[in-house]
Amino acid sequence: MSESPPLYLYQELEYLGSASTFIDEVLETTRQVEVFDQFYPNEIQILCQFMHCFAAPGGAVLLQEGQEGDHLIILLSGRVTVRKYDLLGRVSSIAMVGPGDILGEMSLIDGEHRFASCIAVEPTRFTVLSRMDLTEITALHPRLANKFLFMLLQIMVSRLRDTGMRMVTEASKTAI
Amino acid sequence: MSESPPLYLYQELEYLGSASTFIDEVLETTRQVEVFDQFYPNEIQILCQFMHCFAAPGGAVLLQEGQEGDHLIILLSGRVTVRKYDLLGRVSSIAMVGPGDILGEMSLIDGEHRFASCIAVEPTRFTVLSRMDLTEITALHPRLANKFLFMLLQIMVSRLRDTGMRMVTEASKTAI
Repeated sequence: MSESPPLYLYQELEYLGSASTFIDEVLETTRQVEVFDQFYPNEIQILCQFMHCFAAPGGAVLLQEGQEGDHLIILLSGRVTVRKYDLLGRVSSIAMVGPGDILGEMSLIDGEHRFASCIAVEPTRFTVLSRMDLTEITALHPRLANKFLFMLLQIMVSRLRDTGMRMVTEASKTAI
Repeated sequence: MSESPPLYLYQELEYLGSASTFIDEVLETTRQVEVFDQFYPNEIQILCQFMHCFAAPGGAVLLQEGQEGDHLIILLSGRVTVRKYDLLGRVSSIAMVGPGDILGEMSLIDGEHRFASCIAVEPTRFTVLSRMDLTEITALHPRLANKFLFMLLQIMVSRLRDTGMRMVTEASKTAI
């Protein structure tokens, strides 16, 4: 639990403080997103004690493809485009996400480079949870950590089924 | 924790008993697989109390694409092919897996239909962990559940990065 900003993160953006200060906004945002259904408000409140809020202008890079990082982001407001380079060096938008969506969870888990870039397309507010924060939650609130990990698993399974089906669809098209 | 077989599962296969009876085999198998590195032997021992062992002949279907199910499998011996139908009704092998590999974890998490079929290509022994077992582990051993869920997350992130890269590679090829 920390009230000071994570100094190594987003030094070029406006630091808004602990997510606890924004508990009403966080509760309102997460209430509208299915993956957070399984959390009681007091559990979201505990999670907020471990997260930090930032504000970003349109155009700000929240996550940069290829860069190292071990934190995830929960969007509170604004829209963010997810972009990825292909092997020919062409960049394309692979998704558009908004309030309640989670970004960057893959690097939180495996500590590897960011798979894609996430760029704010309008003024955006978001909270940050680092791997160290997650370790602390696990140590202090193991049952809450289980819920959080299970939620991340649900998100990943959904993405895996989606990309798997897209690959199968593409393979079928190629064969026609 | 249960010493009786999960009666609704694999009634056509040989039930070998609680995985605790095979603790030496399970420890030997998991010792050789990186994702299990983070578990102490006594933790594997606890997990075994919640799992059941089966033996399958070559050709046996361990998981059937499209069917409902909420359990995962950890392979102890033998090789298993993973097959999936495309939209044109053609089936192809998308992976070959062996001892220590985990199968079926997506349906354990989201309770949805099996994404692919898993068929033993030779005599195989495997352990089964159902969603109910995982719920019990979470209730009785929350910190061990943290580790287990984190391991599943690592496996999924690795698969997501892999399928994501394959999609990017295919898209680049199509563009050439």
